[in-house]
Amino acid sequence: MPRQSTRLSPPSDQSGGDAAASKSALTRSRILDAAAQVLAEHGYGGLRLTDVATAAELQAPAIYYYFSSREDLIGEVMRCGIADLREHVETALDAIAAGAPALDRLLVAVDAHLRHELEISDYTTASIRNAAQVPLAIRESQIREEQRYGEIWRRLINDVARGGLLRPELDLYIAQMLILGALYWAVEWWIPRRGSVDAVVANAQSLVRHALVDDSAR
Amino acid sequence: MPRQSTRLSPPSDQSGGDAAASKSALTRSRILDAAAQVLAEHGYGGLRLTDVATAAELQAPAIYYYFSSREDLIGEVMRCGIADLREHVETALDAIAAGAPALDRLLVAVDAHLRHELEISDYTTASIRNAAQVPLAIRESQIREEQRYGEIWRRLINDVARGGLLRPELDLYIAQMLILGALYWAVEWWIPRRGSVDAVVANAQSLVRHALVDDSAR
Repeated sequence: MPRQSTRLSPPSDQSGGDAAASKSALTRSRILDAAAQVLAEHGYGGLRLTDVATAAELQAPAIYYYFSSREDLIGEVMRCGIADLREHVETALDAIAAGAPALDRLLVAVDAHLRHELEISDYTTASIRNAAQVPLAIRESQIREEQRYGEIWRRLINDVARGGLLRPELDLYIAQMLILGALYWAVEWWIPRRGSVDAVVANAQSLVRHALVDDSAR
Repeated sequence: MPRQSTRLSPPSDQSGGDAAASKSALTRSRILDAAAQVLAEHGYGGLRLTDVATAAELQAPAIYYYFSSREDLIGEVMRCGIADLREHVETALDAIAAGAPALDRLLVAVDAHLRHELEISDYTTASIRNAAQVPLAIRESQIREEQRYGEIWRRLINDVARGGLLRPELDLYIAQMLILGALYWAVEWWIPRRGSVDAVVANAQSLVRHALVDDSAR
């Protein structure tokens, strides 16, 4: 299910600002977008650079001008998948009032995570489908990104717990991972005819709220 | 994370019952177990028959005595992954009293699903990690199995709804898929040092119960 994909991380060098640098950054983005799409559909073992080049409307050797190897390109897609998602969720959290209740912040994160995953980016799909199959050496920076992203959720859930709202029987880490699973897995089944993204978000927010918090005890 | 794997489906021909047929069935099982392990670890594109043969302690050509092609073998692992899981959950549901409350039956299914996935079988891991990457032609019987398995969950959640217990804001299909995502995804993060399977089951049961049912309204 190819979706329109957008590489959200800024190119590493835009400071020059001249037209050539800008064109180069755009080409690099186009290659990454194409690689994310191919990786989401065909997997690590099935990604061929010729398919990436075709999707990016380039000749395959041009890829080597931007990435030193197939592994370098895949590693960057895997990293972007989580890094872009994290930045999207962080931006959404930054946009709400500083003193907002912990549960509200958590539900904003649910919304931002799902919309990024379902509407915006093939990168998350590429990252999560291939996480177990890509060699560890290629995944190092992805793993660091996953830890940073997990840390956001750990803090969100921890804040709910510190407010005395968390159901006492829950283990914070297990609950966090079950919830992230429900969110991540949505790429595997969601298609527009299964309901709008709004409906998926609303159901997921209800699920997370009631799974974690006993409203009747508030 | 290789786990001890067990091919749960009965061999297709045990009716003869003689020693040769039994040995043949065992060898076929050993090949399937090995393929499930390799497929879970390396993915569809990365599965080499030589690796399967090594894990099964056979010569690679021997595989062709049991499976007509690499695709045939992979298709059978993918199908088993869901079929065994479904049979395990069905057996657990059959073991509880016929008149058990709908919610109790649902929580038994949560328990059975997680234990099968985390304790018993590499097949589920192989199936779910590769579902998006294996060509449709190979996945046909897996897709039928997924539909049969999904039907069990659809009925379980529907029974909760018919009992008047389901939170009214939930969409039955979306809620079902979010919950299945939380359960399926557990293979991607769970390792024994993250807590016992019992703890994962207990947290998941709490999550599912409270996500779907408003206890205070009962």
